[in-house]
Amino acid sequence: MSKTRLEAFSDGVLAIIITIMVLEIKTPHNTSWTALLEQLPVFSSYLLSFIFIGIYWGNHHNLIGAVSHTNAAIIWSNINLLFWLSLIPFATGWMGENHYAQNTVILYAILMLLCGISFTILQICIERISKENTKLAHAFACLKQKSIFSVVCYLLAIALAYYNTLFSAILFCIVAARWIIPDRGIEKAISH
Amino acid sequence: MSKTRLEAFSDGVLAIIITIMVLEIKTPHNTSWTALLEQLPVFSSYLLSFIFIGIYWGNHHNLIGAVSHTNAAIIWSNINLLFWLSLIPFATGWMGENHYAQNTVILYAILMLLCGISFTILQICIERISKENTKLAHAFACLKQKSIFSVVCYLLAIALAYYNTLFSAILFCIVAARWIIPDRGIEKAISH
Amino acid sequence: MSKTRLEAFSDGVLAIIITIMVLEIKTPHNTSWTALLEQLPVFSSYLLSFIFIGIYWGNHHNLIGAVSHTNAAIIWSNINLLFWLSLIPFATGWMGENHYAQNTVILYAILMLLCGISFTILQICIERISKENTKLAHAFACLKQKSIFSVVCYLLAIALAYYNTLFSAILFCIVAARWIIPDRGIEKAISH
Amino acid sequence: MSKTRLEAFSDGVLAIIITIMVLEIKTPHNTSWTALLEQLPVFSSYLLSFIFIGIYWGNHHNLIGAVSHTNAAIIWSNINLLFWLSLIPFATGWMGENHYAQNTVILYAILMLLCGISFTILQICIERISKENTKLAHAFACLKQKSIFSVVCYLLAIALAYYNTLFSAILFCIVAARWIIPDRGIEKAISH
Repeated sequence: MSKTRLEAFSDGVLAIIITIMVLEIKTPHNTSWTALLEQLPVFSSYLLSFIFIGIYWGNHHNLIGAVSHTNAAIIWSNINLLFWLSLIPFATGWMGENHYAQNTVILYAILMLLCGISFTILQICIERISKENTKLAHAFACLKQKSIFSVVCYLLAIALAYYNTLFSAILFCIVAARWIIPDRGIEKAISH
Repeated sequence: MSKTRLEAFSDGVLAIIITIMVLEIKTPHNTSWTALLEQLPVFSSYLLSFIFIGIYWGNHHNLIGAVSHTNAAIIWSNINLLFWLSLIPFATGWMGENHYAQNTVILYAILMLLCGISFTILQICIERISKENTKLAHAFACLKQKSIFSVVCYLLAIALAYYNTLFSAILFCIVAARWIIPDRGIEKAISH
Repeated sequence: MSKTRLEAFSDGVLAIIITIMVLEIKTPHNTSWTALLEQLPVFSSYLLSFIFIGIYWGNHHNLIGAVSHTNAAIIWSNINLLFWLSLIPFATGWMGENHYAQNTVILYAILMLLCGISFTILQICIERISKENTKLAHAFACLKQKSIFSVVCYLLAIALAYYNTLFSAILFCIVAARWIIPDRGIEKAISH
Repeated sequence: MSKTRLEAFSDGVLAIIITIMVLEIKTPHNTSWTALLEQLPVFSSYLLSFIFIGIYWGNHHNLIGAVSHTNAAIIWSNINLLFWLSLIPFATGWMGENHYAQNTVILYAILMLLCGISFTILQICIERISKENTKLAHAFACLKQKSIFSVVCYLLAIALAYYNTLFSAILFCIVAARWIIPDRGIEKAISH
């Protein structure tokens, strides 16, 4: 089974997820700047999710780039990842509309946690069929370390949301910053 | 006529269908967990349809992978399949919003039946232009047997919905489980 | 400028147009079959537009398949065609929701007319850069003859809508039937 | 990292942005022509944004066509551009619904300014890795000159919106006209 359609389908789904979120930003019913500013929490949550999906797209790109062929495990762990990612617009909308209320931030953190775990599962499935490649092994170790860092941050974000959701928001930004540069390990491993 | 654009167009439509369903999950208007839990039927119906469309994507992938060229019959039976699949978000939304009420489950089962039949029609059109390939013939026989199994399950699901829609839901899950692993018959036939 | 991205972009836009129309079919608020049947006009208008966009996709596929390279005229006449096609969900929704009321049918026919003219403009732009190909010339003549037939039908549909919109609906079906088989002229011309 | 998926993802996002705007044009609740004409401002703002996104697509096409490989800077400046472009449906809807009210036109001009700047950033990132190519250098200079022209127009549009939003609308049209033909400089530079 070729990976071309896997990439095309994933790109399609990611492109749609990243774009339909903007439908959550309702146009204000009057034309004052105040009415527009009231959309700021919605807008900021959209920005955050846009960055996260951009990160997933970049890393998904690298991960699938490392595969020479696909199997059922990769296809289903990829569909599993896309499923959790597809819920991001919902969680983003709930969080933005309710001005980062406690429960909504916790749900967002849980969803991010599930997306992170799903990404790691996909990575493990890909590792299994690329065992002999020692350079990739190094790249995969880099990715795994970043994933563990993210999981810890998400768990902290859930816990800290009970005190102040601002801490959770800061943790989301830290995770984003940690991931924002696509992993050069894999890139190099592939190009060599 | 090349099959590249047929794949690209189908991938696009399937990616959109699978993603717009999430728009049916309305964000709750307050931030309590109870309000979120009320979305559980909507969420579970979304999950079910997501899996079904994932299955269709995987098998469509295999089926089109078996074609070397396309003709008008394949193009139109493919558009026919996409049409019925495109109605899944509607049927999913109706079923989820109404907590799996009898009529909504029956409609969902009928739609699944029509999708299954459309997939079989597409398969027959593809078989016709790949007659000489004996290995594919075996793979097609596997697919057809699975399709008959599904059709029987859907018919049962329609009938049992008059007693208890839970039986129908279980049958949907059985069909999903039966299909969840992409058919290796075709994969092998193509790779040899 | 390569035609790959022109095809990819057009496929994307067509896939989205064909799928977002289904968002116009609102889920009924109760679970009776009567409530579902009330959606029949919306459903039938969706079916009609789905077929028309499928036809445009198939013929667009053939037309672009005939090009070896693109230029600014092709790109902009393609964007022009996509613009009119993108209004189909709007016209379809208005017509379906209002049970094929006179004005809505007239608007639909006018839009179809504009789409048809835009397709012909795109064809002319493509013809200009493929002048030396005599086989294609025959295929283009076939397409042009079909387009003239459609334009006449649409004009008739507009006029007859003032008597009875049923006549217009029948004319739409006649046009669809005329186009439903992708033009073999171009296919043959390309394959030889 | 290959540029194929960068193109595919960008095409997907642009195709969705250009198409979801049409969802902003609500179907009138009655069937009179007057009700339809009331949608004219919404329709005209949709047309304007459709042309702008078409222009961005064409130029993005040319710009990425000039790259032989990608790096993190290109990927992130591309995601940055897509982010601002993804807000166009929101700004378009707000402007159209409120009949080109002052604030809405100013927001639209600001957004266009940000999109223009983001495009220039992407261009600079691409320039950096194609320094040795002297023909491209000429093409890039053309693009940059056009971008400066646009930025000046957008700034003027913001200022003039305080007098009369009609001037701003005219300026938008002038920018569109200036860009509407894809830059032949790059095309030629690549083809030679």
